[in-house]
Amino acid sequence: MGPVVAVVGGGQLARMMAAPAGALQIHLRALVEAPDGAAAQVIPDAPVGAASDAEAVVAVAAGADVLTFEHEHVPGDLLRDLVQRGVSVQPGPEALAHAQDKIVMRTRLTELGVPCPRWAEVRSAEELTAFGDEIGWPIVVKTPVGGYDGKGVLFIGDAAEAAHWLDHPRGAVLAEEKVDFRRELAALVARRPSGEIRSWPVVETVQRDGVCAEVIAPAPDLPAAAATEALEMARTIAEGLGVTGVLAVELFEAEDGRILVNELAMRPHNSGHFSIDGSVTSQFEQHLRAVLDLPLGDTTPTARWSVMVNLLGSERSDPAEAYPALMAAYPEAKVHLYGKSVRPGRKLGHVTLTGEDLPTLRRRAREAVEMLRGAGA
Amino acid sequence: MGPVVAVVGGGQLARMMAAPAGALQIHLRALVEAPDGAAAQVIPDAPVGAASDAEAVVAVAAGADVLTFEHEHVPGDLLRDLVQRGVSVQPGPEALAHAQDKIVMRTRLTELGVPCPRWAEVRSAEELTAFGDEIGWPIVVKTPVGGYDGKGVLFIGDAAEAAHWLDHPRGAVLAEEKVDFRRELAALVARRPSGEIRSWPVVETVQRDGVCAEVIAPAPDLPAAAATEALEMARTIAEGLGVTGVLAVELFEAEDGRILVNELAMRPHNSGHFSIDGSVTSQFEQHLRAVLDLPLGDTTPTARWSVMVNLLGSERSDPAEAYPALMAAYPEAKVHLYGKSVRPGRKLGHVTLTGEDLPTLRRRAREAVEMLRGAGA
Repeated sequence: MGPVVAVVGGGQLARMMAAPAGALQIHLRALVEAPDGAAAQVIPDAPVGAASDAEAVVAVAAGADVLTFEHEHVPGDLLRDLVQRGVSVQPGPEALAHAQDKIVMRTRLTELGVPCPRWAEVRSAEELTAFGDEIGWPIVVKTPVGGYDGKGVLFIGDAAEAAHWLDHPRGAVLAEEKVDFRRELAALVARRPSGEIRSWPVVETVQRDGVCAEVIAPAPDLPAAAATEALEMARTIAEGLGVTGVLAVELFEAEDGRILVNELAMRPHNSGHFSIDGSVTSQFEQHLRAVLDLPLGDTTPTARWSVMVNLLGSERSDPAEAYPALMAAYPEAKVHLYGKSVRPGRKLGHVTLTGEDLPTLRRRAREAVEMLRGAGA
Repeated sequence: MGPVVAVVGGGQLARMMAAPAGALQIHLRALVEAPDGAAAQVIPDAPVGAASDAEAVVAVAAGADVLTFEHEHVPGDLLRDLVQRGVSVQPGPEALAHAQDKIVMRTRLTELGVPCPRWAEVRSAEELTAFGDEIGWPIVVKTPVGGYDGKGVLFIGDAAEAAHWLDHPRGAVLAEEKVDFRRELAALVARRPSGEIRSWPVVETVQRDGVCAEVIAPAPDLPAAAATEALEMARTIAEGLGVTGVLAVELFEAEDGRILVNELAMRPHNSGHFSIDGSVTSQFEQHLRAVLDLPLGDTTPTARWSVMVNLLGSERSDPAEAYPALMAAYPEAKVHLYGKSVRPGRKLGHVTLTGEDLPTLRRRAREAVEMLRGAGA
């Protein structure tokens, strides 16, 4: 009964797909890294296997209406082979390549005329130095493949540092302008194979140490023109790259007013977690609908403001210990824990508050998360 | 990690506990009737066994922080034995007895001074006839134990019918005044063992053939005094009977203005399904919090109106076939299907709409459910 969605990956994103899948009678099957991981705790059909294991991925896709992902780390060759066999892979390997390789992404976005930081593909210290001298130091260097949450990103202050860092050729890297930005934004859209696109309001994301710490939906005081521009960029990218499912476009709002693309993710994204409690249709339900090529749901906010604060690490062995005190003090808090063991800085959960008064929401959401962190407890 | 809640029963109510359990990192374990039933499809830890099987119930409670229920059909002796062994059974067997036996319920509510239809425990045609002659025909006769959704309820028109129906003694039955009512209401509250109580707004329930067909939250045009009275009655019952978890009090709003208790349920209830999409805290999350004796969540509505319409049977072999047309026409509809095979009149799912304009919400929710039913398709 109902469609079958196979998802590669067993972390919190697959875990959070389980609730809307259950509501819609969608059979969710997850290829998980470990039998006791975040997703396997709540999904009965959760075979264990690696995303790079062709046999495991073929097996999880068998009999499914669609194969999708909660991360980008599935080899393109493997996905192209599945498509050849007639499997519906959403997003498809051609689209996903742009979320797997930042040089491929920058090349294509530039072709599409989507504003990006100035960038170059560099293969030597000489090329890097030339790029820095041209656009001005400092610059940013990124490994094209495999980085996430600030990992694989380096700031290079001057030509001497550049010479030191790239003194041995190590394949192409992406060099980028270090953007002076007022703040970071994210534009979240979903697109289905037959073309329909829906977006959520543009959000503000607050990063700490390269990791998303807090999201405010919608982004406060964002001029309507900038919001429209950001959503148009996301739409251009979704259509131009043939993205299906949820697409998150991380953006800089530069000091000079430009809106520039920072990163892409083709899956539900931390910047959209607020939508579980703050939108008629959450990003997780929307992703399932989109990859199944079902009509997309209404993304109207359920409250004026939503604030989501991440729980990054905890002093507690189990953050749920905080429930009696937290729930008594913050009865309106929507707490989400991912069933992950505690490690420093690890994304263990998040708290969302919705309502009318933004400063109060931010303060109370942070306080609730502090209780889960147990700082000073 | 996190607390463990064991629930007896594997239908849609246990199924709908899975989403908030996942969010709160509560390990949910369900004793299910069948390995492919509604709850087992979405709960990894779902041993198969009957609610009347002492061994199965003891096993499902082992290591759990609390044992709770999605129906009332668990023998009291078995539960008392578990309490003796130190298991936290919520609601406890003494409270649950009032949801298991309607004569016990009427006796206790009358002691508490809670308004009920006039009633009598009768054991013979003579007693039944005397009751009908006293309060006026027709009257209602109910089997005290095991009835649900209109089953076990009979209307008796006059003394001749009474003589026919009760011509052989068959144990005590409950005879009641047939209340002339304007409409039916329900008051939903949750109570935790340490005493905290929270309520949702009083709702109107629309029954067809003795089965809940539609719920409107809050009940339209209900005078504030009547709403207060209904919630006070629910609070009196929850405290007087020592109920823990969710308590649903089904009510008549009589033509003469009286608010009278019809039935009780000590678990999440059809009249509260709207709260998944229309309340900050759903009845399913609240039930889990309450039985774990955790502080209760905010029950503020997320919209002015919520309308929930049940899917009772379907012409389709799989109601999810309707998704492409339904989701295109009703992008704002929150569809919930329970993974149950289709049978005439069976509760297969529900649709909730929230918003500002009640007539539009009712019309569109009904239309969406008609698409799932496939009537005329």
